[in-house]
Amino acid sequence: MEEVGRNMTLIEYKNDIVIIDAGFQFREDSTPGIDYILPNTKYLEDRKDKIRGIIITHGHLDHVGGIPYILPRLGNPPIYSRNLTTVLIKKRQEEFPHLPPLDIRVVEKEERVKLGDLTAEFFAVTHTIPDAMGVIIGTPYGDIVATGDLKLDHKDGVPSEDEEGRFKTFEKRKVLLLMSDSTNVERPGFSIPEWLVQENINKIIKETHGRLVVAAFSSLLERAINIIQTVERVGKKIAVDGRSMKTNVEVAKQLGLLKEDKTIIPIDGIENYPPGQVVVLATGSQGEEFSALMRISDKRHKHVQIKKGDTVLLSSSIVPGNERSVQKLKDNLSRQGARIIHYQTSDVHSSGHANRDESAWIISHIKPMFFMPMHGYHYMLTVHADIAASTGIPRENIIVPDNGMVLEIADEGKTFYARPERAPAGLMMVDGFSIGDMQDVVIRDRQALATDGMFVIIAILDTRAGTVKKSPDIISRGFVYLRESQDLLHQARIIASKTIERSAAGARPINFDLVKDDVTDAVGKFLFQKTNKHPIVIPVIIGV
Amino acid sequence: MEEVGRNMTLIEYKNDIVIIDAGFQFREDSTPGIDYILPNTKYLEDRKDKIRGIIITHGHLDHVGGIPYILPRLGNPPIYSRNLTTVLIKKRQEEFPHLPPLDIRVVEKEERVKLGDLTAEFFAVTHTIPDAMGVIIGTPYGDIVATGDLKLDHKDGVPSEDEEGRFKTFEKRKVLLLMSDSTNVERPGFSIPEWLVQENINKIIKETHGRLVVAAFSSLLERAINIIQTVERVGKKIAVDGRSMKTNVEVAKQLGLLKEDKTIIPIDGIENYPPGQVVVLATGSQGEEFSALMRISDKRHKHVQIKKGDTVLLSSSIVPGNERSVQKLKDNLSRQGARIIHYQTSDVHSSGHANRDESAWIISHIKPMFFMPMHGYHYMLTVHADIAASTGIPRENIIVPDNGMVLEIADEGKTFYARPERAPAGLMMVDGFSIGDMQDVVIRDRQALATDGMFVIIAILDTRAGTVKKSPDIISRGFVYLRESQDLLHQARIIASKTIERSAAGARPINFDLVKDDVTDAVGKFLFQKTNKHPIVIPVIIGV
Repeated sequence: MEEVGRNMTLIEYKNDIVIIDAGFQFREDSTPGIDYILPNTKYLEDRKDKIRGIIITHGHLDHVGGIPYILPRLGNPPIYSRNLTTVLIKKRQEEFPHLPPLDIRVVEKEERVKLGDLTAEFFAVTHTIPDAMGVIIGTPYGDIVATGDLKLDHKDGVPSEDEEGRFKTFEKRKVLLLMSDSTNVERPGFSIPEWLVQENINKIIKETHGRLVVAAFSSLLERAINIIQTVERVGKKIAVDGRSMKTNVEVAKQLGLLKEDKTIIPIDGIENYPPGQVVVLATGSQGEEFSALMRISDKRHKHVQIKKGDTVLLSSSIVPGNERSVQKLKDNLSRQGARIIHYQTSDVHSSGHANRDESAWIISHIKPMFFMPMHGYHYMLTVHADIAASTGIPRENIIVPDNGMVLEIADEGKTFYARPERAPAGLMMVDGFSIGDMQDVVIRDRQALATDGMFVIIAILDTRAGTVKKSPDIISRGFVYLRESQDLLHQARIIASKTIERSAAGARPINFDLVKDDVTDAVGKFLFQKTNKHPIVIPVIIGV
Repeated sequence: MEEVGRNMTLIEYKNDIVIIDAGFQFREDSTPGIDYILPNTKYLEDRKDKIRGIIITHGHLDHVGGIPYILPRLGNPPIYSRNLTTVLIKKRQEEFPHLPPLDIRVVEKEERVKLGDLTAEFFAVTHTIPDAMGVIIGTPYGDIVATGDLKLDHKDGVPSEDEEGRFKTFEKRKVLLLMSDSTNVERPGFSIPEWLVQENINKIIKETHGRLVVAAFSSLLERAINIIQTVERVGKKIAVDGRSMKTNVEVAKQLGLLKEDKTIIPIDGIENYPPGQVVVLATGSQGEEFSALMRISDKRHKHVQIKKGDTVLLSSSIVPGNERSVQKLKDNLSRQGARIIHYQTSDVHSSGHANRDESAWIISHIKPMFFMPMHGYHYMLTVHADIAASTGIPRENIIVPDNGMVLEIADEGKTFYARPERAPAGLMMVDGFSIGDMQDVVIRDRQALATDGMFVIIAILDTRAGTVKKSPDIISRGFVYLRESQDLLHQARIIASKTIERSAAGARPINFDLVKDDVTDAVGKFLFQKTNKHPIVIPVIIGV
């Protein structure tokens, strides 16, 4: 509720809990070394027996990524989702062979599932991956609607007939609460529709005379499918590269979403066709170090070398934080003579989330009594709350949630308020094989080590004489360039020895903790004076 | 030449060298812990006696930030710049009291300075700080023009009469080479003119009923001056907060650029005025941790607490890499009830660099024979080269430079080519008090420590018996949470002891290097198997 990522929401009624989504979030600058951040599931772990099922709205990692880590902790409840989503979940689960099999149940758009005293129904939504859906949880007092991630299919701000039809069904419903996607509500008007993006890409595919490399998010599977189909239509050939892109295209083929078998050629076969016939669809639009496009750009790719006359189409936006790596990617590609087309100069990308006016349209078509913005940082949620208010929902019926907040609909659906208690919401991090909620010390040490490095002093202390035997050893990493710092190390050794001997003088038995503190202080101060850096100083004093 | 930052260019003719700018660049993700990156000045250090002067185009840190670090290495050549720039340089130099005084010479727009066989003339340019200028270096064969950072003052793409006048002077000149700012050439059309931004800000200042906090870059001094003048005009009061903002406003007052003395009130006096009368001008639009606005946003500020009804105007863009901290800033501010206005929803910020069509206008008014794009990442430079070609400059007269490239104008000004040799261009980093060009090992260690931490094993080896005395000590930071990893540590100790004894067995004297390598391998492998993390393993083996 306070970020884009690690999505998970639960609805509890008497003895039944239904969960919606189980995503993860990628690490942030403030959590170095961490693999992923998970939703905190402590509340659910304490109420395992009430869980009737987990509904997954669509197959993106911020909605499914937590499954392998979280579901075992919840007693492996049944997962409900549409076909493609379940295939993607299974595919990913193969990377965790030690886990028990998942209990996956494929549902269809118009289906109704009973989950204890609650029910779940589903409706298709427009996003960037097939089989994306919203969920309607039926309660005795009315419906709770979660949209999942969505935008609208529209032309110049007029939603298509399909969209009109989908949202018309809400007219007959009594919607208690709407929980809706806030990712792009700060952007004005309507988002660029995907059909326009695809029209532009199709034109580029058709009109490019030389070789064309298209880099796109593998998660935007609808676009990947469209690109392959267009290549077939214009009679060119396409090679798919990058692990996640190959996996997702494979999945699309398995499900019959793609039938263009002769159009897809192996990546090591592109030299068999004239450049103007060849399209490469690759991962790596964010400049990720080992991605296909990055390897192409810095000449590490075995089969694709950029030549003058090649065009690279970056059909993607820049994910915040990746600006520098995307810049490097563009620099490398242009150094080798590629022409680059990107979203800042033409409409070759659109995100899958509704802008301001689309969000207003969605709210006013679902017409809920209560509203809770979700899927966004706090400020985005407040903007979404303002939009909801502008559609006529009274301010007191709108709550902007925090992580772990417990909202209650009471009085048989008449009131909506935040309960005083909170569910645990501390950070749950995946760090290698470890999954934990308390690693603040470790993270802080990593940050300190990244900035100033460390400085270990090993001294042998004759406990009877109170003297340091020989000069102490020093081990330092990430602090200063040691070869050029011999004098600094020499002085640090002398200061360490003197401090240890002074600190140990008199006291028998020697108070090693005190000696260590004194050495840390004295050496730390000295190093800061000389270098303006604060390495982590660790004294090791061995008494003999 | 390959980034935005650490700008420095030199022009060499026979026995004379003239330098333009001496900036620094802030650290990147790939250089953790580093303070700044400097231009590599090795080429100049080897030719100190040829340096006739250094010309500074304007007072921004990417053009002046390197001065305290670089000038002592170049024998403190005279600095030429306009008034405000020289004041800012002197102000900053006060932070380096151990350095010899600078030899600063104030020049005026139309002045002509003799620098050996070369001359320098100056022309005012529109940027975001007063006294920004371009430079014309006169040579016996024609002029070399460096624009510095610039945009155009214009209305709907028609430059103002002032701009027309400035650039008209080039009609009479024989311009050999133009070197020009590429920062924003990827953006279409003309940039938002500063007068429009100021008009919008002035409207907000006038019409905001509650308290208004304006956060802006202190480096955009023209805007800060305008804001204070507007506050005076509408009869409100303004408090200035944040060190760099206070310094720059102070400088503006000293130079007579600001005369609004009674309008500026101390920050601890804002409670003496009704909220609707108070404007706060603060630093911190990027969410920098200790900045004024960040302290306001997370309730650490002594004198400013956000209340419902307050408006925060972020008159700034988001510098790439700061997305997350700006998001946090907005989240915190909105949590406390502030209304937020930012550049993504209204024209309250514009950058100081020319867009595509402005850049074309500039090139076609200076009409150089040769063109070199500068001040941008490689891809930006290639885009700028394309723009130059579109104005009619032949492709063979345009060179896209790399850092350290040596370009020669030969044949009395008739040919332009890149010489085969390169000036040293390795990274020069400021890291605490150290300035150096070779710290790759240190940087790599910092990156490794940030991700996986470190693991030091200290064992005492009886060199005669070949046995480890007691269980080895382990010191680990940034790796795993130690309190929950007792079993892992226990096993690591056993593996370390066994490996040492096995490795030491037989060989007398014991080969300590070999033993250490064996322990590093064995323990490293074990830890990776158990945790999926690769800490830096450092064995310390003390023979007794």
